[in-house]
Amino acid sequence: MTEPGIGHNSGADVGGIAADRLRSFVQRIERLEEEKRGLQEDIKEIYAEAKGTGFDTKIIRMAIRRRKMDKADRQEQDATLELYELALIDEMLS
Amino acid sequence: MTEPGIGHNSGADVGGIAADRLRSFVQRIERLEEEKRGLQEDIKEIYAEAKGTGFDTKIIRMAIRRRKMDKADRQEQDATLELYELALIDEMLS
Amino acid sequence: MTEPGIGHNSGADVGGIAADRLRSFVQRIERLEEEKRGLQEDIKEIYAEAKGTGFDTKIIRMAIRRRKMDKADRQEQDATLELYELALIDEMLS
Amino acid sequence: MTEPGIGHNSGADVGGIAADRLRSFVQRIERLEEEKRGLQEDIKEIYAEAKGTGFDTKIIRMAIRRRKMDKADRQEQDATLELYELALIDEMLS
Repeated sequence: MTEPGIGHNSGADVGGIAADRLRSFVQRIERLEEEKRGLQEDIKEIYAEAKGTGFDTKIIRMAIRRRKMDKADRQEQDATLELYELALIDEMLS
Repeated sequence: MTEPGIGHNSGADVGGIAADRLRSFVQRIERLEEEKRGLQEDIKEIYAEAKGTGFDTKIIRMAIRRRKMDKADRQEQDATLELYELALIDEMLS
Repeated sequence: MTEPGIGHNSGADVGGIAADRLRSFVQRIERLEEEKRGLQEDIKEIYAEAKGTGFDTKIIRMAIRRRKMDKADRQEQDATLELYELALIDEMLS
Repeated sequence: MTEPGIGHNSGADVGGIAADRLRSFVQRIERLEEEKRGLQEDIKEIYAEAKGTGFDTKIIRMAIRRRKMDKADRQEQDATLELYELALIDEMLS
């Protein structure tokens, strides 16, 4: 990838591995992870703002998770949960 | 590093640390972690059995998590979620 | 499991599900999870004790994780990491 | 918050909450989470490519994690781990 003899070994192997390739992979991953951290920071700030406005961020997280589901699946899940809780509550009444 | 003649160095330092103490901590932790893994295995088997009986294990997990909550908190959470979802659904209708 | 007609429905279905079976699964899981929490608490205390004795608990965790590995695997992993880090350090020198 | 009478209820409260604000928070979070998933997908592809090139991706992850540390901290950590492992190995020899 680089010219030989220009003072660094970027094209050479280090211990039999293609050092250049490894560096490139690592740098690309680190760059993307840095961007991800930035987005995560932005998301955190929006939650903080929502909390400051009086919203319950735990519930917002639940609502967002549920919005990813198919509507029919969500309804079935809700119905099943209600059924199971009814069966389990019963235990305390009996 | 170890005293000659006492068979093992359990009372001696290794590199300035109390090797004996360290070994004891590590062994105690490993023993407890082994027990924890056993319990985790047992829990997994119960879920597998529940699934085999026809139950939805994802919903069982939800029900168990919710049973840990105070009843009033759970009801408030449900009401808030319903409210938020109403506000969010509205978005599509308007 | 229970006599019919003694004032609770433990043998009956709730909404078509075997309420009894569900309760049994949930109770067994909750009992095991309680035990697991107890063990986790014990492990935490040992780490606190080790820290109080002057040990670095982050390193103890690393050592415990590594002890689970096959010795040859661990040595190969260490050698590969050293090689990769050499290739990556080189980048800054060149 | 918005003018009434513009054909949708975005300015109205739903159950006493500012529906508009909630929608805005949720949409902003969902957009950023979508971007995050995209980046995560990109990172996964780079690891797959590295693996395809013959690299050990577990070790790449370790190297990346270690590169985030201060050099002196990393060296101290390595030395402490070596010391602890010496103390722990000794146990089997004695």
